[in-house]
Amino acid sequence: MEPRISLITLGVTDLDRARRFYEALGWRGQEVEETVFFQAGGLGLVLWGREKLARDSGREAGGAGGFGGIVLAHNVRSRDEVDALLAQAEQAGGRVTKPAAASPHGFYSGAFADPDGHPWEVAHNPGFPLAEDGTLTLPDFDTL
Amino acid sequence: MEPRISLITLGVTDLDRARRFYEALGWRGQEVEETVFFQAGGLGLVLWGREKLARDSGREAGGAGGFGGIVLAHNVRSRDEVDALLAQAEQAGGRVTKPAAASPHGFYSGAFADPDGHPWEVAHNPGFPLAEDGTLTLPDFDTL
Repeated sequence: MEPRISLITLGVTDLDRARRFYEALGWRGQEVEETVFFQAGGLGLVLWGREKLARDSGREAGGAGGFGGIVLAHNVRSRDEVDALLAQAEQAGGRVTKPAAASPHGFYSGAFADPDGHPWEVAHNPGFPLAEDGTLTLPDFDTL
Repeated sequence: MEPRISLITLGVTDLDRARRFYEALGWRGQEVEETVFFQAGGLGLVLWGREKLARDSGREAGGAGGFGGIVLAHNVRSRDEVDALLAQAEQAGGRVTKPAAASPHGFYSGAFADPDGHPWEVAHNPGFPLAEDGTLTLPDFDTL
């Protein structure tokens, strides 16, 4: 298995609401057969009905809105950008679940939940460099 | 918000077990402070304790193992690779939750759950081209 991810699909209970939220943050989606696709760097972020998504993976959908055990992170280039994005997410209908704060490891982060409760961390972490195109390269921790 | 994702963190209940699983699939991790980092194309896949992950996002961890509402997909270049990867995931301690099957949309896919229940779809989808480096570019659906 090559170490890469092709798609991340978020199960949603209201596709239009979810699409509006991500579009309010500046993403641009294409809708096909009740599925919304966003190009996100070298992969796709997809919005799809939660029940259909669960069934398609051979799983029971269970209750929506709780902590699902996966957190997406969006790293930015400054602390100001962290603050601005959290404010924008709230404005767009998200919920700030952790206000931005500095951590002892030198990074600054906060978190929001999208309208379906999917968690996003927003972070400025000087130790994890972002390339011009936004791709992230992990440091070699042995040399830090 | 630029349309990109920097990190995907999977909450796990047994870090060593989770790391062994992904390493058995061929990924190579670095462990730092009870956190395992894998470079996955232009982003990082991270394994971290589920409770810590929830708390760090300002959330309640809830129960582990259920459907969390997010599915990761790993697209490959042939149907044979789908079959091989599902077999490898099972061998490594994962659970095949949907055996591979062809869909009317021309793709062929199955799904497995990692030891913590995180769902992965494995798909061959000729309509979503993979570049040499494994990055995926969504089609312009209007022109299909």
